[in-house]
Amino acid sequence: MKVICSKEKLLEGINIVQKAVSTKSTMQILEGILLKAGNNFKLTGNDLEIGIECTIEADIRREGSIVINSKMLGDIVRKLPESEILIEVKDNGKVIIECENSHFEIKGIPSEGYPELQMIENENMFVSTQNILRDMIRQTIFAVGFDDNRPVLKGILIESNGKELDFVAIDGFRMAQRRRVSEEEFSLIKVIVPGKTMNEIVKILQPEDEEMKIISSKNHVLFDLNNVKILSRIIEGEYLDYKSIIPSDYDTEVIVEKKEFLSSLERASLISNEEKKYPLKFDIEDEKIILSSSTELGTVREEIRVEMTGRKMEIGFNPRYFIEALKAIDEERIKIVFTSEIGPSTIFPISGEEFAYMVLPVRMNKDT
Amino acid sequence: MKVICSKEKLLEGINIVQKAVSTKSTMQILEGILLKAGNNFKLTGNDLEIGIECTIEADIRREGSIVINSKMLGDIVRKLPESEILIEVKDNGKVIIECENSHFEIKGIPSEGYPELQMIENENMFVSTQNILRDMIRQTIFAVGFDDNRPVLKGILIESNGKELDFVAIDGFRMAQRRRVSEEEFSLIKVIVPGKTMNEIVKILQPEDEEMKIISSKNHVLFDLNNVKILSRIIEGEYLDYKSIIPSDYDTEVIVEKKEFLSSLERASLISNEEKKYPLKFDIEDEKIILSSSTELGTVREEIRVEMTGRKMEIGFNPRYFIEALKAIDEERIKIVFTSEIGPSTIFPISGEEFAYMVLPVRMNKDT
Repeated sequence: MKVICSKEKLLEGINIVQKAVSTKSTMQILEGILLKAGNNFKLTGNDLEIGIECTIEADIRREGSIVINSKMLGDIVRKLPESEILIEVKDNGKVIIECENSHFEIKGIPSEGYPELQMIENENMFVSTQNILRDMIRQTIFAVGFDDNRPVLKGILIESNGKELDFVAIDGFRMAQRRRVSEEEFSLIKVIVPGKTMNEIVKILQPEDEEMKIISSKNHVLFDLNNVKILSRIIEGEYLDYKSIIPSDYDTEVIVEKKEFLSSLERASLISNEEKKYPLKFDIEDEKIILSSSTELGTVREEIRVEMTGRKMEIGFNPRYFIEALKAIDEERIKIVFTSEIGPSTIFPISGEEFAYMVLPVRMNKDT
Repeated sequence: MKVICSKEKLLEGINIVQKAVSTKSTMQILEGILLKAGNNFKLTGNDLEIGIECTIEADIRREGSIVINSKMLGDIVRKLPESEILIEVKDNGKVIIECENSHFEIKGIPSEGYPELQMIENENMFVSTQNILRDMIRQTIFAVGFDDNRPVLKGILIESNGKELDFVAIDGFRMAQRRRVSEEEFSLIKVIVPGKTMNEIVKILQPEDEEMKIISSKNHVLFDLNNVKILSRIIEGEYLDYKSIIPSDYDTEVIVEKKEFLSSLERASLISNEEKKYPLKFDIEDEKIILSSSTELGTVREEIRVEMTGRKMEIGFNPRYFIEALKAIDEERIKIVFTSEIGPSTIFPISGEEFAYMVLPVRMNKDT
């Protein structure tokens, strides 16, 4: 193999595929990046859960392929001058990396054992833009579960009925749902993608309008950008019926300035001790919410003006669940509906159905 | 105690004095900040090695003092709105912190046991500006030693003969010396300040022309800015005679572009393995330096153009020592002089005597 490419493009590619390289695999070859020069020059990282392939512009002088330790390759390329880089594999398997007056010669690993990505056919597909997909992941991922006994909850459900596309995450105590309604028809899809994959994808996606495809097969889902393809295994099993979780009826509704409410929640949570799980009390009454908490660290009281309809209510929550939901919301004013002292509460947009965040309350001791 | 002050000023003060608060002291009171309202409003942090006192503008309604857990106070004030903050100590020792619609009530610790800073008299004093002192610390601190058996080397020597002010750090393998020559006479001073103190001071100093005083007594040194006073214990003992360390004679001199040389050194050091201490070979010849290294990870070769006088030389170094010295230097072109294959090398400015960095070579195996 012998290729010449710009430092800039090469580093861009390395930074992307490194997100799929495992740093402590039992298989040394998986700690490497596959470089493959054929019709094009392609980098691949793969930890068997998620694989990322990136095609970069290059002048291919001789075809071939090699695996190079990912950290070593990244460290070297990052430090090279902004210039053309030559990468050449010698007959003895050594790899020469050359740029201006710098000359490296490092060990390569033969590419034969490297698990290349098996691309999947267009079984179920829909098209989105990078920025929309990015928002939809960002606005749900925090509610992904961690419980190994409930593996389906460790992923984000992507579901579409052809008109509406939903991203959903549920951890057992709360739910985050983000919906996109489209003018065009697209194909039906229903797939649970591991939270870990989504976390890496959200780092790769750019806030751009560029189109990308999401294609699912029986065992895999492929996120297909122009030069970058991300292939992930999917989580098998039946997801919860999330549509039935959101109560259609409620006793109290408030409309609140999101930013102000978020600041008050953040301050109020300073007094609680996350490990000990003190609830934060919401007193909803007379066009205001009073947040209060009393722990061994001290007491706090916060007052927020709201628009209110329905009855007064006194209800306890884990403040972190509200804080994480509010941080994910871009709207300035939001609606919160409370069903009862023990039933779920839900955060909605003032109008439309772009998102829904559901939180279960915490039982309060009578003396708090 | 009852005071009202702006969030901005209070937070500024907390951020400064927190640098002297120990986070895991066996004395609970030392994990707190002393708030003292008298003629002025003063915050103090003190871990008994270094103490910082900061005076902030405030409306003092009732005099008094209290100690509040530093992390708790910082977290609360950071999250409060940009507005006026009331701090009031109640008769039961509880502290009320109030700002707009936020109301906190937390435990305070009586201030009686808190070790207030003992300010020292003007025994030996010199005056500098913040930015010069900041540079002098930054340009020497990396060479401070860590060896408990040589405690004097764990500090920076501050020495002045009345005309020249020197900051010096030596760790046994290298030396960093930064000199400032002044037009005015100032008093003689010779004091070893712990590296830890210097690390905190450099974070507090601003790149500003504002004057500050440095005052030393038998056991302490005081850095006196306008509203901030930093008091540190000093290290006792006799410092090395650093002036005799720099060789006056040498065999080879090169003049080199600092930035280019630094990049080459950084790349060349990627192949070495810091733990195994492979030396980096310098081949100095024919108006160039060739850096090379060969380890189990691979080989590297870097070539740098230099202006050269004297004989050819082949000499090995720990590249980190050169890298850290070059990073501290602001000059674009520098002079490096090599005494011999086994003697110290020194980095100087092209002219003047503003700094000197001395590095000892490493013996090389004949087969590298």
